Parts: sequence; structure tokens; C-alpha cells
Amino acid sequence: MSPHRPLQGSTEDRLIARYFGPLAMHPGALGLSDDAAMITPPPGCDLILKTDGVISGVHFFPDDPADLVAKKALRMNLSDLAAKGAKPLGFLLAIALPKDLAEVWLAGFARGLGEDAEYYDCPLLGGDTDRTPGPTAVSIAAFGTVPQGTMVRRSGAKAGDRVIVTGTIGDAALGLRLRQDPAAANNWDLGERLRDDLLDRYLLPQPRNEIAEILRSYASAAMDVSDGLVGDLSKLCHASNVSADIESQRVPLSEAARKVLTSDPDLMETVLTGGDDYEIVATVTPAKLRPLTAAAQAVGITVTEIGEVAAGDGDARFVGAQGNPLAFARPSFSHF
Amino acid sequence: MSPHRPLQGSTEDRLIARYFGPLAMHPGALGLSDDAAMITPPPGCDLILKTDGVISGVHFFPDDPADLVAKKALRMNLSDLAAKGAKPLGFLLAIALPKDLAEVWLAGFARGLGEDAEYYDCPLLGGDTDRTPGPTAVSIAAFGTVPQGTMVRRSGAKAGDRVIVTGTIGDAALGLRLRQDPAAANNWDLGERLRDDLLDRYLLPQPRNEIAEILRSYASAAMDVSDGLVGDLSKLCHASNVSADIESQRVPLSEAARKVLTSDPDLMETVLTGGDDYEIVATVTPAKLRPLTAAAQAVGITVTEIGEVAAGDGDARFVGAQGNPLAFARPSFSHF
Repeated sequence: MSPHRPLQGSTEDRLIARYFGPLAMHPGALGLSDDAAMITPPPGCDLILKTDGVISGVHFFPDDPADLVAKKALRMNLSDLAAKGAKPLGFLLAIALPKDLAEVWLAGFARGLGEDAEYYDCPLLGGDTDRTPGPTAVSIAAFGTVPQGTMVRRSGAKAGDRVIVTGTIGDAALGLRLRQDPAAANNWDLGERLRDDLLDRYLLPQPRNEIAEILRSYASAAMDVSDGLVGDLSKLCHASNVSADIESQRVPLSEAARKVLTSDPDLMETVLTGGDDYEIVATVTPAKLRPLTAAAQAVGITVTEIGEVAAGDGDARFVGAQGNPLAFARPSFSHF
Repeated sequence: MSPHRPLQGSTEDRLIARYFGPLAMHPGALGLSDDAAMITPPPGCDLILKTDGVISGVHFFPDDPADLVAKKALRMNLSDLAAKGAKPLGFLLAIALPKDLAEVWLAGFARGLGEDAEYYDCPLLGGDTDRTPGPTAVSIAAFGTVPQGTMVRRSGAKAGDRVIVTGTIGDAALGLRLRQDPAAANNWDLGERLRDDLLDRYLLPQPRNEIAEILRSYASAAMDVSDGLVGDLSKLCHASNVSADIESQRVPLSEAARKVLTSDPDLMETVLTGGDDYEIVATVTPAKLRPLTAAAQAVGITVTEIGEVAAGDGDARFVGAQGNPLAFARPSFSHF
């Protein structure tokens, strides 16, 4: 029980200087040697702000590689920036480390964080390091910019808009199942390659930051899919005060997910509600569907139309192959 | 192990809507119902960014009142903004709650947070709520603004500058001693009022945000005192590449701290190195000392000159009443 900032010359300072100092290349980070960081926001821009994090044993497995834990924590936030049409500007890191955590873990964490900060052009601006009697916990506050007034909201969907998603849905949720029950790979008749595809999607999100500007240009509403497509689309519908009719057989699936569903069709619920996708669900007027799709394709992102927005008050209605309404036991994940 | 964002209509959503929704009055918080928050930075301003937090059993006692835990977490960050000369703009909150935490705790936490957000004009912009198998943990990322290029750095102190501190030093560290050993109040011959003064200073920081603009106008360097005056001033000296000569008997003490030191003079080390002060240490040219002091007085903040900056390379040298150099076993707190 005590004050807790780092001490000049202390072990904490040494760890910060050694592992995080090299990441603080942005001039506004002031080499992590001032009370706070400073950025000059680009003129004519709005600032987009997001905080999200991971806790060991809750959002990642204690034996997950440290570099991937760092990347996951950052990418979860980058995914939200992408969905809002924002270009990454930088981030603050708060990390709580158990007393017995090996320094090699911190080294791996900082390496992964540095790689992603560079790749996504999202520099570390500052941070806070604490010891904790609990599990390792990482909280990130990420910042992005959009030209003033152009943030893509959840609330812009209109009846008649088409609903699209990026990439494929459900892989991470199936990857988590494989982590929890490795034998499932055999039951599902997955070879090594497809099994690894699913495991990788769980371990390391692939946020869709290349599509941010395209969403600003064409989408009427967007959000990232992190808690499951069903629940997240419901939130978008609720914010827009509309409904959506989704044909579940149009939801884009990877080769691995298709194979899993062939073995066990009941896992469609896991695919649609499991979450950790870090894809984007968006709505777009019919006239803009084709330009959006083409622009996304041009940056390497596949976009799939999965349904339509209708008048209503917040329902995301999914139907099966025969037009039968699908009901879900738990539309998306909640801690509580 | 699972994705973790809130579900529309879930208990988590209900808790967020109930307790944090009313705090999200800033239009850019979007009612906490979008992926991210949005702010339009005031033109001509730099943005100051800080993250700091508290963990139960590390930075506060598990039985501390929840509203004060919230206020402490926010005020720690506000104190850094004050030291940089920044006006608060808003903050993001990341909170990890044990599964068995009573909802009444969250209610108290949100109440305290809301009171301070209003008092300091620093609105909640967004957040992240998780369950944790560990202790309650609160991480805040706070934002402020300064006119472009005017952030008060640690690095601006020059030989010949005077060193000043706000308020009184050491009260929180003595308050912590009282929490750890309540009987000490009797040994120190403190009455109830003085005992409560110390306990209050530990429980609830009083950041010096009224002085932010004054620091911008007059200070050559500043930082907040959170890890102990000795260690923090050393950091400032290091960043400025100077030394400082401090007369410890000029360090401003409260009535309670003076009484404690009468009983136990050895506690001077605790006063000077214990931390959690959330005062400001700053440097100022001799010509600006009087205007700074007068301006601070006008907003109700006492400023005390405690020494002088000299050429050097990062030493903060404290001398006793006879000019004897003081040595400290542990200049300030570190977790590591």
C-alpha cells in the first residue's frame, strides 16, 4: 500500500527504460521522461478515443506468447479505430505485472508491442507500470484522427441499407474452442493447417485498418465485431433505431469454419455469437455497395453483403437457409 | 477465456448504463453507446495525455470508500495535468472488477467519479469494464489542453532558478503510516483533528489544478510530487540536466506533520520521500518568483520557496538545519 510511480534509477525505471523506452519514438512521448505526453492534433481533425484491455485468464491464456498478448491488446483498440474510420495516432499503455513475472515475458511483450506500433503507425506515447497481486493486466487507450465530423457512427443506418461484413466470421470463437478442447480438431476432421488457421485467429486479431478511409467515404454506419456478430449488429441496429434481416448462410466463413460446421452444424451459434472476430460490420446505401466493395478489394479486404436494414427498433434478425428465424441462447459474450 | 465486450441488454450493459451512463454528459462520449469517443480539440492547442491507476491492496486499502477510490484514481491524473499547465478535457476509464464485488461498491465508485468529473470539469468520455480474478483495478487515461507549445516540462530548469512547492509535503505518507499502524496517532500525540488531517491527505489527493495556468505563465519547469519530493525533484533535475540545493527545514509542513516530527524526527525521511503528496514542485527564475507566488495566493494556493537550482547533472541535494547533507535510504517509492 503505497505510492507507486517509478523511481529514478530503480528497477522499475530500468525496466521501463529498457523495454518501453525504445518504443517511445514519437517526439510527444518525451522519451517517457515527463509527467505526461503531448501531441499536436492535426488541424481540422476530430480525435477518436478508445480504451480496451486484456487480463490473463480472462482474455488470454497465461501461456500465450507475450508478444502476441501485446499485439492482441493493441489490435483490439485499433479495430475500433478502424470501424470509426480513424487513422491511428498513438496510444497509452497501462500494465500491471505479477511480482513473479519473468523479465523475459516483459521483453517479449515490448517486442510485440513495438512491432505492431510500427506496423500500424501507432506509437507508444506514455504509460503506467504497476505490480499487482492479481493476474497480468494490460489496458490500452488508443487515439486516432478523422477529418472533422466524419467519424463513422453506429447510429447512421437507414432502412434499405445493405449490411456488409469484412473477412470471415467465427474463426476466433472456434479457435478458442480448440484451445479449450484440443481434441475437437480431430472430431471436426481438421488437418493441421485448418486447425492452425483457427488458433491463429483467436491468438492474433487482424484489425481492418486499411478499410478505415473507405468506411468514411461509403458506410452509413459501422462498428467492429468483437462480441459476436449477432450481438454487435443488434447494438448497431439499436443505435440507429432500425432492424436488420440477415441471411445466416451468406455470412462469410473460412474454409476451416465451413469444415467445422459440416461436422457439427450446431456450432453455427458459436460462429455467429462467439466474438473476437475483429472484423467490421457496416451498413451502406445500395448505390454505394459496389464502390465500397471495390475499394475494399483494392486494399485486399473482402467484403460480403449479408442482409438488409429495415425499419424497426433494434432487432438483428438472423434467418437460416430455409428462411427460418434463428434464436440464440446467448447472442454475445458478457462478463456479468 | 473469451471475448469480453458488453452485450446489449446484459448485466454488464445494465451496470454501465446505470452507473456510468449518467456521467457521460459530454457529447463526444456518445452516451457510451458507440465503439469510441470523439472530441474536437480546441484549435491552437496541444493535447496532454496521461495514464495512471490504482489497484486494491497496492494503492488503496480494500475497505477504502469506493467514492474516494474513484476520486483518487482521477485526481492522480489531474495532478499530472496540473503540473504540465493543462486544462482538463476529459478521461477514459478502464475498470476491472472482482466477481464478488457488491454492486453498491460500483454505485459509490460512480458517484465519486461523477462528482469529481463535474468539479474538475473533466468529463467521462468512454470506458472499458471487465471482470477479473484479481483485485479491483482502475486505470484512467486523462486528457488536457494547453495553448500550442506551452506545456510545462520537467526539462526547463536553469541554474539560478528558485525551487518552489505548493501546499504541504509529507502528510499523505504520514497518513499511510497511520493506516498501517493506528496506534501511532497516540505515540505522536496527535488529537483526532490532526490525525484525520493526515488520514484525509492519504485517502483523497487535492490536486493543484487551479495553478495550471500560473505554471504556464511563470514556471521554467514543473512536475507533480507523487513519489516523494526527493525522488521527484531528482527526476526534474535529471530531465533539466541541473542540480538543486534544498533546505529541508524550508519544506512546508502541516500542523499535523510538524507535531509528528516533534515526536519522531526520524520521520523527516518519510515526509520527504514517502510520496502521494500530489503537490507541485516547480522552478522559476528569481524575477518571476514573486508574481508566481502572488498569483498562486490569489487562487488560494500557498507556494513555498525551498531552494535553488545549480549547475549539475541530476542531483537533488537536501541539507538539514545545520547545513548537513541528508542521505535517504530509499529516495522514493518503486514497485520493483
